Amino acid sequence: MTELLTPEALHAALRAIGAERYHNLHPFHRLLHDGKLSKGQVQAWALNRYYYQASIPAKDATLLARLPTTKLRREWRRRLEDHDGDGSKPGGVERWLVLTRGLGLEDSYVTSLQGLLPATRFAVDAYVHFVRDRSVLEAVASSLTEMFSPAIISERVSGMLRAYDFVDADTLAYFTPRLTQAPQDVDFALGYVAREARTREQQEQVLAALRFKCDLLWAQLDALHHAYVSPALPPPGAFRPA
Amino acid sequence: MTELLTPEALHAALRAIGAERYHNLHPFHRLLHDGKLSKGQVQAWALNRYYYQASIPAKDATLLARLPTTKLRREWRRRLEDHDGDGSKPGGVERWLVLTRGLGLEDSYVTSLQGLLPATRFAVDAYVHFVRDRSVLEAVASSLTEMFSPAIISERVSGMLRAYDFVDADTLAYFTPRLTQAPQDVDFALGYVAREARTREQQEQVLAALRFKCDLLWAQLDALHHAYVSPALPPPGAFRPA
Repeated sequence: MTELLTPEALHAALRAIGAERYHNLHPFHRLLHDGKLSKGQVQAWALNRYYYQASIPAKDATLLARLPTTKLRREWRRRLEDHDGDGSKPGGVERWLVLTRGLGLEDSYVTSLQGLLPATRFAVDAYVHFVRDRSVLEAVASSLTEMFSPAIISERVSGMLRAYDFVDADTLAYFTPRLTQAPQDVDFALGYVAREARTREQQEQVLAALRFKCDLLWAQLDALHHAYVSPALPPPGAFRPA
Repeated sequence: MTELLTPEALHAALRAIGAERYHNLHPFHRLLHDGKLSKGQVQAWALNRYYYQASIPAKDATLLARLPTTKLRREWRRRLEDHDGDGSKPGGVERWLVLTRGLGLEDSYVTSLQGLLPATRFAVDAYVHFVRDRSVLEAVASSLTEMFSPAIISERVSGMLRAYDFVDADTLAYFTPRLTQAPQDVDFALGYVAREARTREQQEQVLAALRFKCDLLWAQLDALHHAYVSPALPPPGAFRPA
């Protein structure tokens, strides 16, 4: 563990982490995409995932505040715009509320976070804290799960449209811009970590940051699976499907 | 929600939170105490709970650093001593390793945190962050789950000794001092919140802090239940019983 990885080897190591740990492999996602969930279970997913979506701009702003150059801040500001919108076109957070609304959940209930699984909050907050407390290199690297997101998004959208009569293309419109935004984000972040990880130790930090991020996405699905699929025991105070 | 609660009403409201949300009500604890778990499942519990135990002094030190008076710091320093020991008698963290060792887990594996469930880490870290980021009043109030711990400890120790041939009194020696330490801690913290919560809003913050703490204990058992009981799907990289 002392020799510097070539850019290709680093890239391959990042891909290998996704192949083992990205949440497209989680049984909850299989159920979601294959149409095996009830409307209440899909609501629980969208409700909890709202907190993740709503925290992404907080995460990006936290990192933005730590970036040292105009060029880096400008790049990261674009991400904030993707998620918070610009006042004319809606951002990702607003588009996620279109999804929860389409599933029959009131905006005020969703944004109150009242029915949120505590485990969702802990995992998502861990992401914001990571970006605040670790090196900028690790913070940027933790965004690299977007390497794997276009595949899962395509699968999710087509699977859900086919499987659920309570879902239509408008409801899932959140995902369309992500198919072009994510690869743009990834190009930047991959270039950044390839350039800035100058020691093997730093490269290992990059890999660990991606593992951490995969773990927190996975943990969110574990919590959903436990609360709403099997054994289907939501913790006290959490959302209960009608 | 404007009138100040009497000390008795505040106390009753705290008790009511415990009656609804304390983790003695979680099915995993029933299974643990009733002898329904395999040795591997008990190992998974002890391994994950190690991270909680090991983080308690970090939590207490974080709060200690924020306390404004000698008197308060002295009180809180005593908690640190309970958990970190004084060099002659072992503290809670060392005593927890007696338990994991008694269950056949190597100290080096346990302390490496390698097999930890990510959800355990997120929940436990959320506790340390809470104590750092919230008011001192809320931080103190979050320790009040100890109001409910003597009952669960008695039940746990007698249940586990009766049910498991791989557990003996020495293995469970962690718990004995906690039966006297916890009530002492609670007396102080209850007096503190009754005195320092001077508005109804602050009293509500106290109640919310206790709810938060119950939630993070509950979330740890949810994660164990999902990974090791039903559907028994440990996340990538987590401990797998032999």
